[in-house]
Amino acid sequence: MATLVLLRHGESEWNAKGLFTGWVDAGLSAKGEEEARRGGRLLSDAGVRPDVVHTSLLTRAIQTANLALGAADLLWLPVTRSWRLNERHYGALQGKDKAQTRAEFGDEQFMLWRRSYDTPPPPIADDDEFSQAGEARYALLPEELLPKTECLKDVVERMLPYWYDAIVPDLADGKIVLVVAHGNSLRALVKHLDKIDDDAIAGLNIPTGIPLVYELNDDFTPVTKGGQYLDPDAAKAAIEAVANQGR
Amino acid sequence: MATLVLLRHGESEWNAKGLFTGWVDAGLSAKGEEEARRGGRLLSDAGVRPDVVHTSLLTRAIQTANLALGAADLLWLPVTRSWRLNERHYGALQGKDKAQTRAEFGDEQFMLWRRSYDTPPPPIADDDEFSQAGEARYALLPEELLPKTECLKDVVERMLPYWYDAIVPDLADGKIVLVVAHGNSLRALVKHLDKIDDDAIAGLNIPTGIPLVYELNDDFTPVTKGGQYLDPDAAKAAIEAVANQGR
Repeated sequence: MATLVLLRHGESEWNAKGLFTGWVDAGLSAKGEEEARRGGRLLSDAGVRPDVVHTSLLTRAIQTANLALGAADLLWLPVTRSWRLNERHYGALQGKDKAQTRAEFGDEQFMLWRRSYDTPPPPIADDDEFSQAGEARYALLPEELLPKTECLKDVVERMLPYWYDAIVPDLADGKIVLVVAHGNSLRALVKHLDKIDDDAIAGLNIPTGIPLVYELNDDFTPVTKGGQYLDPDAAKAAIEAVANQGR
Repeated sequence: MATLVLLRHGESEWNAKGLFTGWVDAGLSAKGEEEARRGGRLLSDAGVRPDVVHTSLLTRAIQTANLALGAADLLWLPVTRSWRLNERHYGALQGKDKAQTRAEFGDEQFMLWRRSYDTPPPPIADDDEFSQAGEARYALLPEELLPKTECLKDVVERMLPYWYDAIVPDLADGKIVLVVAHGNSLRALVKHLDKIDDDAIAGLNIPTGIPLVYELNDDFTPVTKGGQYLDPDAAKAAIEAVANQGR
């Protein structure tokens, strides 16, 4: 039996401002830093001691990992990072105000972009100030791999090779694996693990800063669908708050 | 031509208290945190952009790397950690007051333990409160590899395999390599690079928080012996201060 722990980064400065972030590299807010530390304490208190850590390439996930690991006295753990764990690329919406976008395009279009499984926002232009074209961080990605927009389906497709090639081998080695990533890259992973339908995934929110623990069978399917949050009451309250974003 | 950047961690809480630290996992002091951030800004300002990072397994080096990389907007760099970059194990002296040890054992013995190349302090007992026996961090090290004391010669011997097997291949790939480590593991590396005699190495101090840049020839020997500190004046002042420690 293997153990997988998912941790969504704490509130970023752009979450706090109500902007679409995607691949824009916003840092954590002070509240997000505290959420990250609390995530680390929850791990310690529960006696869950990861052996390895995987993060995205985005600062807010890496800061969350560093602060959580620091709080758990585990900074020394080996860590691997991949763009495949990045947040969904929000296309031309990156940098735009969520409430303003909702007012401008209407509820239906807004919810389609936010929650439909296979409708991406319009692509971002390379010369847009919020484009990642040319960023040193992605210099090793061939141009055809660097997204200009993504729907959740795209995220599932680019995330899964990392699940199979990097995370599963660690789990197969008997390691407890911590994945620190984003709302949508973690929804993509949970969709795969829990075999959630393309329609039903719209209703799934993952709260920030609360470790979600999956015990996995030998074939890497969950023993219990949905896993177990280390602070179930806080998770429930946070999930409801996320659902109200942009209202 | 390859580029190697060495960075010694900022002041730790135990440096500040004047205690022998070695493998005891003291965190950075507030001053040390600021030194680390300044190290990152020096890298940015000099336009030195590492491609990969190597750290020890000790919190003060990892915190230094994280703060420096954060200040340089480079948290996303791939990082590898190894016990082979750890500080010298200070044996039974770990946890002892430096000035008190000097008073108790005399100047000659004190300087022998601090600066002789091949005289280690007495070994630490496994049940000493400052022993690392049984720490989860070193669980993958067979017992015969976990030091109970070390002289600088021992550090050179256990550090060099990491240089040859992990750092040199990165340099050979044309990467700019940042190594964030400790006074003695970096002295060991500099001794090797600059071919410093066993006697002369006693006089070499490496200041905290100031990146030391080596341009290397194709055979990984330094183009210029001693490399180049990114802030030479601050380095000179700091080297003099280190030499006066424990006085």
